[in-house]
This record gives sequence, C-alpha cells and structure tokens, in this order.
Amino acid sequence: MPTDPTASARAYALAVDFGGTKVEAALVDTDGRLVEGSRHRRPTGRNATVPELEDSVGGVVRAAAASLPDGARIVGVGIGSAGPIDRARGLVSPLNVPHWRDYPMRDYVASVAAELGLDVPVVLEMDGVAITMAEHWVGAAQGVDNVMGMVISTGIGGGLIVGGRVITGPTGNAGHIGHVEVGATFGGKALRGEDTFGNPYALEAMASGPHTVAWARQHGFEGATGEELAAAYAAGDLVAREAIARTGEAVGRAIASATALLDLELVAIGGGFSHSTPDLFDHMRTVIEHHYFPFVRKVRIVPSALSSEGPLIGAAALIHRAHLLP
Amino acid sequence: MPTDPTASARAYALAVDFGGTKVEAALVDTDGRLVEGSRHRRPTGRNATVPELEDSVGGVVRAAAASLPDGARIVGVGIGSAGPIDRARGLVSPLNVPHWRDYPMRDYVASVAAELGLDVPVVLEMDGVAITMAEHWVGAAQGVDNVMGMVISTGIGGGLIVGGRVITGPTGNAGHIGHVEVGATFGGKALRGEDTFGNPYALEAMASGPHTVAWARQHGFEGATGEELAAAYAAGDLVAREAIARTGEAVGRAIASATALLDLELVAIGGGFSHSTPDLFDHMRTVIEHHYFPFVRKVRIVPSALSSEGPLIGAAALIHRAHLLP
Repeated sequence: MPTDPTASARAYALAVDFGGTKVEAALVDTDGRLVEGSRHRRPTGRNATVPELEDSVGGVVRAAAASLPDGARIVGVGIGSAGPIDRARGLVSPLNVPHWRDYPMRDYVASVAAELGLDVPVVLEMDGVAITMAEHWVGAAQGVDNVMGMVISTGIGGGLIVGGRVITGPTGNAGHIGHVEVGATFGGKALRGEDTFGNPYALEAMASGPHTVAWARQHGFEGATGEELAAAYAAGDLVAREAIARTGEAVGRAIASATALLDLELVAIGGGFSHSTPDLFDHMRTVIEHHYFPFVRKVRIVPSALSSEGPLIGAAALIHRAHLLP
Repeated sequence: MPTDPTASARAYALAVDFGGTKVEAALVDTDGRLVEGSRHRRPTGRNATVPELEDSVGGVVRAAAASLPDGARIVGVGIGSAGPIDRARGLVSPLNVPHWRDYPMRDYVASVAAELGLDVPVVLEMDGVAITMAEHWVGAAQGVDNVMGMVISTGIGGGLIVGGRVITGPTGNAGHIGHVEVGATFGGKALRGEDTFGNPYALEAMASGPHTVAWARQHGFEGATGEELAAAYAAGDLVAREAIARTGEAVGRAIASATALLDLELVAIGGGFSHSTPDLFDHMRTVIEHHYFPFVRKVRIVPSALSSEGPLIGAAALIHRAHLLP
C-alpha cells in the first residue's frame, strides 16, 4: 500500500503561548500554518489565581485540540512561556504572573493532554526562544544561522540561534536581552532608565514601551500609551521624537554588546512597541553603523516578518523543529 | 601486529599563541601537557613590520617543530591569535599590531609547516576561544557545558562554550566580552571609563589593567603599573582599594549581562591583572549575589586554573579537541 503523500501535512503541533495578559493555543501544521478556527485565547494576568490560570490554560488547550480536522493527528504540544522558567523541571515563574512561582506548567499541560487521550511529547521553552525559532522557520531569519529574536513590548525579551542551533541555556533562560546593561549617554546625559528590579541600566528599564512613555512624560509628553506616543511621533512632536531616538539608541547599543559577544548576523525585532515607527530601526542601525568593529557593523536589524501568530508558530516549532533544540 | 598503546600519547599539536607583545609556540600532547623544552618565544608589538612579525612567527614554529621527540608526530597546528580575526579566510587584524590588517596568518603558518614537511591541518581561532577551550579541557571549567573564559590584562578578552560546544561565531569573533557595555554607577557616579575606540562604556574601557591604573591615577594614585596598584592595594591604600572595587563591580556587571543572555554556569578568569588580589573576585561575586534573577545568581566566578601555558594549551585544543568546534 503506498504511503499517503499528505500524511506529514496532517501532523499538527498543539501550540501554547503563555503571557502576562493572555494565553493562546492553536494547531499548527508542519509548514508553520495555523489551522483555521483552531486559535483560542483566555485571560491570565497579575491577579489571576492558580485555579483561574489553570482554567485558562486548560481551556485553550482543550479548545484547540477540539479543532483537529478529521484524519489528522497531534504529534506534540509545544509551550512558549513568559520567563523565567526552569527548563529541566518544566516550571514557570512569569514575572508578571506573581501567583505562579515554580509552577509545573509542563506537567499540568501534559495532564490535560493525557485527559484528551494524547500520548505525545510536551515541550516547554521560554517565549523568546519560541519566537526566535518562528523567525528562523518562516519569518525574517530564514536561512540565517546566527540570530537574535527580540520583542519590544511591555517588556523586552529575546532568544538566540547560534551556529544554527537554538541556545536555551541549561535552565532555559538564555536570551534575556532586556536584562543586558546599556551604558551609553544620550545627548550628553546618562541613558538611565526607570528601575527594573533595581537596575536602571538594564535595557528593558530604558527602552520598553512603558518605560519609553514614562521618559517622554517626564519631559512633557501628555499621553499615556505607546500608541499615543507613536501618534505624537507621526505628528512631529519633539519629545516623542527624542524618546524614540533615545530608545532606538539604547536598543542599538544592547544589540552591539550582544553582537560583540556572539558575532550575530541578524536581529529580528517584533512586539507592539517595535511598530511605533520605522525610524526606531534607523536609530538602532545608526549605532551599529558607527561601531568600531567591522564584525559588529555587519549585523542586520530587521522587523519581524511574523504576524500576531508568531508566538504560536514558535511554540509549534518546539515540536516540528525540535532538531534545532539542544 | 598489535597497535602501539602509546601511539596516541605521541601525537602532538604544534600550538601557537600570537599576542600584542609576543608570539609563542610549543608542542602539546593529547593530555594538554607541553613537551619539555619545546616552548619558544619571540617579540611582536605595535612597531613590528610584516617581515619582522613573520620572522617571529616562523621562528617559534620552526623551533617548536625542531623539539619533536623521536618516534612522535605532529598532527596539526593550532593558532590562537589576538583579534579581531576572519575565521573563514584565516586572516588576523590584532588591535595592538597595526601592521597586520587582514594578514593571512593561517596561510603563512601553513607555508612554514609545509616547508617543514608537515602535511597537517592548520586551525586559527581567537585567543579567547583557545583559552576557554583550555579551561574546559584541563583548567577550571572541566565538565562544565556553559562557560565563559575571560582574560583581564592589557585588554579584556574572552571566549564561550555554550551547551558543550565552542561558540566561534561566523567570523570567529564571538567572545569579545571586553566590548560589552556596562551601565552601572559606582559610589553614585557613572562608572565611565577611558575611551576605547570612542566607547567609554565598554567593559575594557573601565576595567582593563591600564584603565584601572589610569582611574586610580586620576584619584591620586602615584604608581604607573598594575603591579604597583596591586602592591598599594595589599598595603591598604584607599584609592587602590576603590579602584579594585570599581573594576570588580564593572566586571561583575558585564558577567551578569552575559549570563542574562547566555544562562552561563561558570566564568573562569585569568590574565595578569586578575591576579592583583583575590578581593577582585569577591567584588564581582557581590554583584552576582545581588542580582534579581536566580538563574543569574547561579553563575560561579573562579580564577583560571591554568599557568602561563594556558594560551598554548588552548591553541593545542584547537587540534586535540577539534570536535568541540563548529
């Protein structure tokens, strides 16, 4: 009997993306495409209790699994989670979800999968790792062996592919680019940010969406959100322009440090605040263009080529592209 | 006929360590031991011309090869060089050797080897990569899969082993920890250093031996060398103590950034200035102990376990431990 040529197209990963405000799940095929109608979302958040969080995670996993087309099968469950995580034990302690500290996310999802009759691997990695794998698979980093994926949003996170292999680190927390320090001045003043866990020099403390807005407000901006800052920028507001220039410089300097350390070829950046204006990327690139090392100057900084499905595609890559993991 | 059980012990790497003041070569066995009498040294330096540099490199290679014991053989030539380098093309552009820019070091050494009748691989990597491989092989990082090797001396360099594999980067320049920025204040003042290629926030600009001495001199220290600073420190001089504390904090903060990015387990530090006082390590460790992420706090910072033979052992590792390279 001949092998069914569509068999591999029918092997789906059940992808879970867990973040500080919501959890999503969907089925993703071996080409990185979501099954229509399989994407489901539930709230998480700072105030959610453990039973509420489990209800949300279990809810989206069950709903996604129920979307499985006839004749198809689920070959694994991939979870990208806000960090920090404990990769070996499958635990998560997302910064913005204080009720989960060393919570056994992998075991919980495995128990839901078992309840659904699924006897498949369940893989947990940090969300930054997942999204970097998505860029490498179907996004802006296809065919590039030395990549940092970044998300600039409420926080700043990331992930690494070095020498064609995903770097998770022994605990699963490699890629925390938001917690790399930046030492530059900007316009002659120290590029100090808001406190992030007591470190105003962490990139995230300077350059996340909320911290950029906070800096602008200290300098007279009257809006409250990243969207308002982007609108003010587009309208030519001088404080907004300075805020974007400062954040672009900070991100560029962190990328320069990461490239000095890892000899990166490409950085792909997504996340809500990264869409404020394309000029944000130009400010980053200016830092890189003026670096004294040619091997740093070679790094390209590009916008993510993923839609809002990116984190789910990345979670699916933990299954479909498992050969790139350690 | 039985295989000679001592055959592998008789396979030597010809190791070359090229730096800004000298070049050395020696024969190194498969256990990381130098062959007695095989170590040779010649000067290099800022003013050396290309023929003088070739004379020095060729001289030590020929002298080391001439030390080969009867019945033994050379199985490869490993070169650790001051960077930056171009790994694919085998070129070096050592910062402190201005006469060599994109100099074809690998081809030159291969030509000397050919002249000696050696038909063996010639491998070139950055010195920081080599020394990290030496720590991992016979030094302070044995059995550890996620390691940064560091040298604190005239400059600050390094190398990386991540997930048990050496990270060279596509151009060969991964590991430039001295060019990662540090953003901390020290005693309420910005931890700004001397300019290093125009970047006073690069770790090397703050914390190398000469830059630490320069900072101390700005604050009243009257000595001129790292040795004199170490002596003043031992004698309880307050400026020397502050200079060491400041440098330790800067190095600790760069290690924290590298660990946030790479989830490192161990950092092994050598180089002349690292021997100033064991307290230097305590200042680094204090930064790490107070970090907000447990996965950063786990990183151990230890002195190199290598003697002055370390860079040569590392260059030999490029041959004897080639399986760890990309």
